[in-house]
Amino acid sequence: MTPTAIPTVTAEQTAALLKNIDVMAALRRVFTHLARGEAVQPAQKVVLLPDCKGDFINYFGVDMAQRRLGVKISPYLVTPDKPLITAWTLLMSAESGMPLMLCDASLLTVERTAATTALAVDLLAPPEARTLTLIGSGAVGRAHLRHVLALRDWREIRVLSRGSAPGADELSRELGLPQGVLKICTRAEEALENCDVLMLCTSSATPVVEMANLTRTCLITSISTNAPGAHEIPPAALNAMDVYCDYRQTTPDSAGEMVRAAAEHGWSRADIRGDLPELVTQACSKPDYSRHVFFRSLGLGLEDLAVADAMLTYLNQQDK
Amino acid sequence: MTPTAIPTVTAEQTAALLKNIDVMAALRRVFTHLARGEAVQPAQKVVLLPDCKGDFINYFGVDMAQRRLGVKISPYLVTPDKPLITAWTLLMSAESGMPLMLCDASLLTVERTAATTALAVDLLAPPEARTLTLIGSGAVGRAHLRHVLALRDWREIRVLSRGSAPGADELSRELGLPQGVLKICTRAEEALENCDVLMLCTSSATPVVEMANLTRTCLITSISTNAPGAHEIPPAALNAMDVYCDYRQTTPDSAGEMVRAAAEHGWSRADIRGDLPELVTQACSKPDYSRHVFFRSLGLGLEDLAVADAMLTYLNQQDK
Repeated sequence: MTPTAIPTVTAEQTAALLKNIDVMAALRRVFTHLARGEAVQPAQKVVLLPDCKGDFINYFGVDMAQRRLGVKISPYLVTPDKPLITAWTLLMSAESGMPLMLCDASLLTVERTAATTALAVDLLAPPEARTLTLIGSGAVGRAHLRHVLALRDWREIRVLSRGSAPGADELSRELGLPQGVLKICTRAEEALENCDVLMLCTSSATPVVEMANLTRTCLITSISTNAPGAHEIPPAALNAMDVYCDYRQTTPDSAGEMVRAAAEHGWSRADIRGDLPELVTQACSKPDYSRHVFFRSLGLGLEDLAVADAMLTYLNQQDK
Repeated sequence: MTPTAIPTVTAEQTAALLKNIDVMAALRRVFTHLARGEAVQPAQKVVLLPDCKGDFINYFGVDMAQRRLGVKISPYLVTPDKPLITAWTLLMSAESGMPLMLCDASLLTVERTAATTALAVDLLAPPEARTLTLIGSGAVGRAHLRHVLALRDWREIRVLSRGSAPGADELSRELGLPQGVLKICTRAEEALENCDVLMLCTSSATPVVEMANLTRTCLITSISTNAPGAHEIPPAALNAMDVYCDYRQTTPDSAGEMVRAAAEHGWSRADIRGDLPELVTQACSKPDYSRHVFFRSLGLGLEDLAVADAMLTYLNQQDK
């Protein structure tokens, strides 16, 4: 019964292992199990440290079809310099109750976040989408680009970034893109004109899009951050869009623009047209693009569980 | 930053290590930190498995004075035979956010539960207490006996057990007691007559004590189980006792006899005279034994954190 050694996977190891793991397939599987009632997604639990020293957030998940349960613990520690953020996932067997793996979840969180957006793009974007815009070119934004590259026949990829953006050549090389497909935009109007899919990957606490700049109906994806009330689009805009999210039971309680739209603009969580469990099992209708489509993900413990489990499966296969 | 190996401590190893650890001292320390606001005790989080397959309970704790945070995960898994219960603690640094140790917490839970009761006996029982009665002689009850043995000059120790109780000789040997001190009782009247301290260590869901059998005012300790509504004394009896508990912020919400006493017998959580953070810092009054004294512990994540941290400290000292 008692394990003699539980695999511990460091950040360096996850970086190397991720190349071998189909994160989107793992997510598609776990959302199918969630739709079937074989998986459970509890609400996250925030524990505040004393004296405003930070917090740690616990993300839970159970997938009985995979016989796994687990928790990701992510401390946010205030220091004299910038805050220290880590994330570790403890994956356990739901058959034996024993731990199976402890892994650094920092990179895995970036990957599952990007792959969740990619799954939504695959399920929601029009097949004929050709123009992709990314706002925010940090590690999370670049992971988004990587995950959606093969999903449509993109002819133009635009990157708008307020920070010190990487150059078009550097990004194109990183993504294996031919010259001329990807361009860096400095003006929002230029980045948003006639785009088909717009991915928001910022840590902004206020809207980063002026809806008037969207000259064509498009799919907007938003991840935002864990900061209370954080949002990337104007809350009032929700009423004029077809809204989807990762999990309708939990996301509307925390997503900043949804909370504000419900409190101030008469929007209701009942207006959500579908979530990922429904989308992967064809249990909700797809958008017809008579108006903008919005997909909001908050990040779920089940996604952390699924990606950790996929990594463990790969490790176990290597050992054979 | 990234650890190359995180110590994993198995049940066998904890059994060997526990002999070297002063669990009561670790608990006294963490309750002092809790009293000072340096430690935080969040409520536990229960996650239900689908299809009534069981649950897993998460116990959290933060002790900034020790620079530790962590979680104990305890799955309760329904099987065709009897349920499978495990418990694992992940101890993390509140300085670096990195994991420090993963340990099997099954034995540690028994030890911290018994040591918590022992701390209460030390703080609440009259110095002149000489007669000790234990109801329930399972592993938890025997750990209780072990932890309270040195706290008072016990002249008589009585064990009442409904199950297949171990013999007096066997128990005396296990505890290193001279012959004649410990006796096995078969009748409640015999076990309870003129006892000074009564420790209840059963998994009963209904009262195991008739108050009329207590012929002298005494200290009653109760741990009960995690089952909803579980209790070991008649809820109505709370009104006639001086009531203490492990942590007044959380225990009255879950302790079966307190929940029922409040709902049905006009008892109030404001009637609690003190808890362990208050007792260890002399911030509440001690009982005068004009009536019975009741101490109820529910079990706290901070206790799990404290005992795991004490074990890690010992392991690190051995490595030097």
